Amino acid sequence: MNRSIILYISGWILNFEAAFLLLPLVVALIYKEKTVFSFLITIGICLLIGIPLVIKKPKSKVFFAKEGFITVALGWILLSIMGALPFFLSGEIPSYVDALFEIISGFTTTGSSILSDVEALSKSLLFWRSFSHWIGGMGVLVFILAILPMAGGESIHLMRAESPGPSVGKLVPRMRTTAIWLYSIYIILTIILFIFLLIGRMPIFDALLNTFGTAGTGGFGIKNDSIASYSNYNQIIITIFMILFGINFNFYFFILLRKFKSAIKIEEVRWYIIIIAVSVILISLNTGGLHGFLGKIQESSFQVASIITTTGYSTVDFNQWPTFSKTILVLIMFIGACAGSTGGGMKVSRIIILFKSIGKELSYMIHKRSVKVLKLDGKKIEHETMRSINVFFISNIFIFAISTLLISLDNFDFTSSVTAVAATLNNIGPGLGKVGPMGNFGDFSVLSKFVMMFDMLAGRLEIIPMLLLFSPATWKR
Amino acid sequence: MNRSIILYISGWILNFEAAFLLLPLVVALIYKEKTVFSFLITIGICLLIGIPLVIKKPKSKVFFAKEGFITVALGWILLSIMGALPFFLSGEIPSYVDALFEIISGFTTTGSSILSDVEALSKSLLFWRSFSHWIGGMGVLVFILAILPMAGGESIHLMRAESPGPSVGKLVPRMRTTAIWLYSIYIILTIILFIFLLIGRMPIFDALLNTFGTAGTGGFGIKNDSIASYSNYNQIIITIFMILFGINFNFYFFILLRKFKSAIKIEEVRWYIIIIAVSVILISLNTGGLHGFLGKIQESSFQVASIITTTGYSTVDFNQWPTFSKTILVLIMFIGACAGSTGGGMKVSRIIILFKSIGKELSYMIHKRSVKVLKLDGKKIEHETMRSINVFFISNIFIFAISTLLISLDNFDFTSSVTAVAATLNNIGPGLGKVGPMGNFGDFSVLSKFVMMFDMLAGRLEIIPMLLLFSPATWKR
Repeated sequence: MNRSIILYISGWILNFEAAFLLLPLVVALIYKEKTVFSFLITIGICLLIGIPLVIKKPKSKVFFAKEGFITVALGWILLSIMGALPFFLSGEIPSYVDALFEIISGFTTTGSSILSDVEALSKSLLFWRSFSHWIGGMGVLVFILAILPMAGGESIHLMRAESPGPSVGKLVPRMRTTAIWLYSIYIILTIILFIFLLIGRMPIFDALLNTFGTAGTGGFGIKNDSIASYSNYNQIIITIFMILFGINFNFYFFILLRKFKSAIKIEEVRWYIIIIAVSVILISLNTGGLHGFLGKIQESSFQVASIITTTGYSTVDFNQWPTFSKTILVLIMFIGACAGSTGGGMKVSRIIILFKSIGKELSYMIHKRSVKVLKLDGKKIEHETMRSINVFFISNIFIFAISTLLISLDNFDFTSSVTAVAATLNNIGPGLGKVGPMGNFGDFSVLSKFVMMFDMLAGRLEIIPMLLLFSPATWKR
Repeated sequence: MNRSIILYISGWILNFEAAFLLLPLVVALIYKEKTVFSFLITIGICLLIGIPLVIKKPKSKVFFAKEGFITVALGWILLSIMGALPFFLSGEIPSYVDALFEIISGFTTTGSSILSDVEALSKSLLFWRSFSHWIGGMGVLVFILAILPMAGGESIHLMRAESPGPSVGKLVPRMRTTAIWLYSIYIILTIILFIFLLIGRMPIFDALLNTFGTAGTGGFGIKNDSIASYSNYNQIIITIFMILFGINFNFYFFILLRKFKSAIKIEEVRWYIIIIAVSVILISLNTGGLHGFLGKIQESSFQVASIITTTGYSTVDFNQWPTFSKTILVLIMFIGACAGSTGGGMKVSRIIILFKSIGKELSYMIHKRSVKVLKLDGKKIEHETMRSINVFFISNIFIFAISTLLISLDNFDFTSSVTAVAATLNNIGPGLGKVGPMGNFGDFSVLSKFVMMFDMLAGRLEIIPMLLLFSPATWKR
């Protein structure tokens, strides 16, 4: 294990976090809030540890997949440990565990909150909370890669470990260029959304924070009723942009290159749209009946877009919906958004490939001789990809089961326990029952909160980095 | 597709069913019940269709895995369609759909019932209901194979398709001998259990039926409170035998051959015992507290044994247990018993192999060069086995998700919907909530009942046969 390079990159993560923290500091200064000092202290600590770590460049350039996974896992934990400080130091979230839960929920774009009264938070902390979604959405290491020039070996492994989906699309040969492209698309979409919300007369502060929450598919609301009190226009805009941020960014890349045919041919994007459309229609029928169907379209579109992209905003309390609609929401929680988007969950492409693998097995049994090749977007799926998807799926289900077991020790009802884990592991935010859109995660025990923090990180980093980090064999010399 | 041989074997299945039906007919005659005619008519129909089908031996001997799967799936459906008749013809279960649900639940050793008052059923129908567990436990085709001499190709594919677990252990080279061995062990264990219950002064009729339910790990109770009203001694005997019938029958085979070392070395059996022990201890602690711990051991042992072996008997209403204990039950529902036993679920060996495959993937990432070989009981797990386990696991989860969605249309609460599917797909019997040990499946819609009938068959036949049966490609010329 090349520890020096891991420490070096960790140093950069802390320095960048210090830079990110300047923004909420400015907010605190504008609104003359007491939180100024909490931010200053946190920035100081970040730099105090971060700067010494980056002064000396590591000698050894050895950097394999293992180092990539470990760096990403450690980096995100470090980011969260520091990011929780402003909440804790300001006293606005008195328990450090709660503060850590809240910021991990932010960075991992989960959006589960331990707060029962969000509106009581100061503006600067609200800003930091929502801004963490935006940082986590595209990934902090991808951001660093876009800015700092690094060796090829490091960047590809870091990017693979941090980017969601079965494999990083080879957009352009050089990783740094990819990172710059991704962030450019991300920033452009973010700005467009912000302008649309301003046109809808949303106050600037609200528009900015809701933009962060939507772009990162995070879902922290800045009002106690999430998005319900905003105008229809703004709700529709947010619905559309949640869906847009859940699309594979390769799609936008092709659009920018004017390769429209290639863009439309991406199977994952087509299925993603089909799943959304079918879910919206079914839920509208189920909640509105045959007559009230049309009137429910907007409401159900918002909720479906929010859950499948794993954003987690809400405009209605879907906990009150009929069981069929609730079940649809739980299923699309697990499906999640597209690979290479800011959304979480298992990713549409993985589900497509798994379905295809069942089809292949059946056809193998029916026509013994013809061995069908598994393809996605016309390209053959390699054996190694298939194996890693299987392992991902299986470990996901196992982590889900074990987490549910641990959380059930708190003795909340079965639905709440199951959906609390589903909502955190898939980076959604709200679940059903006690953790429904009108509830929060504050009442869980410390053990449960740590389990869910692990799940949020495992969900965002797609499990393997977290498993490697906690595997004893990783640390054996 | 070799249709003539499929019809030929189906004919034998009907003839054997007619023979099986003689037993409840005798019971009806002894107790002078009106059901005599229902049984006679059913026997008549079975023979009327069955005998013409077996008169002409099929010319073509072509019999591949595909034919094996289809024969087993069709055979079980045929068996159930006929087996439901006595309930329906006697008028004791007025709806044919309900009668079909009940007998599929019987043959698949599920034990989910649509009856709210079991004790109202006549003795002969109670007998048929419990006897169906015993027939289904070891498999009707394995039984036929043990009695009728068939060609090698047929027997191996039929046995593979009907026997639970990732692969049929090669106990002895010839399939027929294997079938005879399996049934001998099955019959011996059954007789021992029956004697033990008689020693416990259980009435003969009760002892016989509870023996059928335990041996087949079925779980149809013959009293409204399942097993709760029997003595402690009898409850303990049933606990022990549920566990024994959930053990891989290879274990008993080795014991009979005096290969004790080989018996003890079976990893699956060891993990099966460990999972039971840990679950019992955790549930006893959770329900009894530190002081009441010991007093709860018997109660929790019974429930754990009943659920992990997918029997489904109950002595207490575990629906009232704390969420942690309920979650343990749901998890062991999915784990299930050992391969090559009469129990259902995913099977302990599959779970072990899946865990090992995650471990292998992690170790592959940590030590890139060393490629570890996956082993079970010291034998290498073939790539094909691994692939079929993955496909089994994935399709199991997908069927679980789709079934839950369809059943949620009935708008019962989320926990009831989820656990109703878990209980039928894993062939357990009771779930939680509405379908808890004190509830029943009678109130579900016809659609939901058909979904659960599919799930029970898919669970018992381990999915692939049912998927192939309903796959259009199977039937294309």
